[in-house]
Amino acid sequence: MKSINILQIGIGPLGIKAAQFIAQRQGLKTIAAVDKSPALIGRDLGEVCGGAKSGVQIKSSIAEAIAKKKPDVAVLTTVSDMQRIVPQIEEILAHGIPVVSTCEELSFPWKTAPRLAKRLDEAAKKAGVAVLGTGVNPGYLMDALPVFLTAVCQDVQSVTVHRFQNAQFRRIPFQRKIGAGLSLDDFQKKIADGSLRHVGLTESIHLIASRMGWKLDKTEDLISPVVAKQKITTEAMTIPKGHATGVRQEGNGYVNGEAKIRLVFQATVGEKESYDEVVIDGTPNIRSKVEGGVNGDVATCAITLNAIPQLLRSNPGLQTMVDIAPVSFFG
Amino acid sequence: MKSINILQIGIGPLGIKAAQFIAQRQGLKTIAAVDKSPALIGRDLGEVCGGAKSGVQIKSSIAEAIAKKKPDVAVLTTVSDMQRIVPQIEEILAHGIPVVSTCEELSFPWKTAPRLAKRLDEAAKKAGVAVLGTGVNPGYLMDALPVFLTAVCQDVQSVTVHRFQNAQFRRIPFQRKIGAGLSLDDFQKKIADGSLRHVGLTESIHLIASRMGWKLDKTEDLISPVVAKQKITTEAMTIPKGHATGVRQEGNGYVNGEAKIRLVFQATVGEKESYDEVVIDGTPNIRSKVEGGVNGDVATCAITLNAIPQLLRSNPGLQTMVDIAPVSFFG
Repeated sequence: MKSINILQIGIGPLGIKAAQFIAQRQGLKTIAAVDKSPALIGRDLGEVCGGAKSGVQIKSSIAEAIAKKKPDVAVLTTVSDMQRIVPQIEEILAHGIPVVSTCEELSFPWKTAPRLAKRLDEAAKKAGVAVLGTGVNPGYLMDALPVFLTAVCQDVQSVTVHRFQNAQFRRIPFQRKIGAGLSLDDFQKKIADGSLRHVGLTESIHLIASRMGWKLDKTEDLISPVVAKQKITTEAMTIPKGHATGVRQEGNGYVNGEAKIRLVFQATVGEKESYDEVVIDGTPNIRSKVEGGVNGDVATCAITLNAIPQLLRSNPGLQTMVDIAPVSFFG
Repeated sequence: MKSINILQIGIGPLGIKAAQFIAQRQGLKTIAAVDKSPALIGRDLGEVCGGAKSGVQIKSSIAEAIAKKKPDVAVLTTVSDMQRIVPQIEEILAHGIPVVSTCEELSFPWKTAPRLAKRLDEAAKKAGVAVLGTGVNPGYLMDALPVFLTAVCQDVQSVTVHRFQNAQFRRIPFQRKIGAGLSLDDFQKKIADGSLRHVGLTESIHLIASRMGWKLDKTEDLISPVVAKQKITTEAMTIPKGHATGVRQEGNGYVNGEAKIRLVFQATVGEKESYDEVVIDGTPNIRSKVEGGVNGDVATCAITLNAIPQLLRSNPGLQTMVDIAPVSFFG
């Protein structure tokens, strides 16, 4: 099988993991890499990723990176917001290269950033290639997967998704990310500065609503600490009673005042059970559960790469995970 | 929203249920119906379905049925095998109408009936419309859904699907269909005459293998009775010890002598638990379970109708459930 040649843009923690995953995959090959960081420019991508020399030197610009050979697709792992990702994608599109990105707000920007979405859609169509935002969440567990589970339903009244994670045995940066151990004051400060928030719940709500044909009159994105009822001691930290064990975020989509879409993400140290569950109230009712849950670090990199073949088969324009054919592993 | 106008072909039990489901749906409207049975020709479709007069008279030919108005899509619920369905679809394609069918062998005919598949693909492309075979199984639970669940995997070693159903509280024709109550001799006779067999396991195996990039060296489709270890008494029947409580069918797909795909369908009177479960051995491992299972009667009709919008958006040619965009309920 001929390999798909990849241009990687953004060699941060996620970009490094993506590069490592690409190196493990048959059928995918990184042939060019771009990052703006002076500390990375000129270095070998393989070595930056902690592996053997790859022969791919990190460049500061796309034009330089692809001078010798045009890649089949760009994997863009830089920012989470539409405002900053759109100019980056437009620069890639100017070279006629399709784009898959982990940018959360790109997963379904039609309602949350309609003007930027339309501008990007037009640029992609003009370039004759497709653009996709994906990841495990948003992009799959709380939107594309529940949508696909309604395939067997003659009627759907509501869609509820629970993503519960016990962070006790996850890496320490993840425990810090969810605010575990913080006093409630410090937790509120982190909410205020935006560093605690999971980006994408509202996009997931709109993706589901668009397929169900529901006109939303309101969406909510609520974030709160989960509070320790007693002292919790782990290998990494001690959480005093009354401090945060982690975060709960809840997204609701209302139709005529009724919450028809409910997405709950809760990650805490000491959570009883890790799982991802979809509950569809409809005909028939569907309750589908992934026990143990899906590890987000692995899954986001994997789904981004797995989306590539279906992205390359799809029509030009801005696509979502329910516009391209069902994404899967491919070997 | 403008309705999608439907031509229904085949007004047997499944066609009647499909017509009833269409009548309940916003956005779908039956405008023409065809059946070859003299007992049905000339009758009103709504009345045949046990409802109010619909104004749609069942005709004996497509040409007659669509004389006044061309439908947007044909829903074809007649036979299960490629040999008989292909000429029926070709007749519909001659009128330039896309087709969605519940024909089991049509769900993924590329390996099991490659010449007919190619012929149909060419005819559909020539007509400029798409053709799809779907249903809950084959078409979803044991193929498209497990394929979509691998989207989060960096690697997949094997795919196992279990569909277990307790038939105790299902309708009596379903209990008869799975051979409940038969002596083992009578069960073998039913296997021999083909009336017990679930059609489509091999198609499901090939669909999964095609996406995983696995070259199969062998497939198996094994059928056997599940035997009562003690007398079982239900409202409908008494099953003596040593008679069949139902059927177990197992499909295996081998790569280099190793069963990498295992699909197990078991339906019995007295089965402990009804569920549909997908187990992916990979990175990460995924175990996804629908508790209570998915009722096949409702689901097959629903998914056939739900597929229509994505079918109409797809490219011309013979499509499968992993070629068109993810199917969902739509309202």
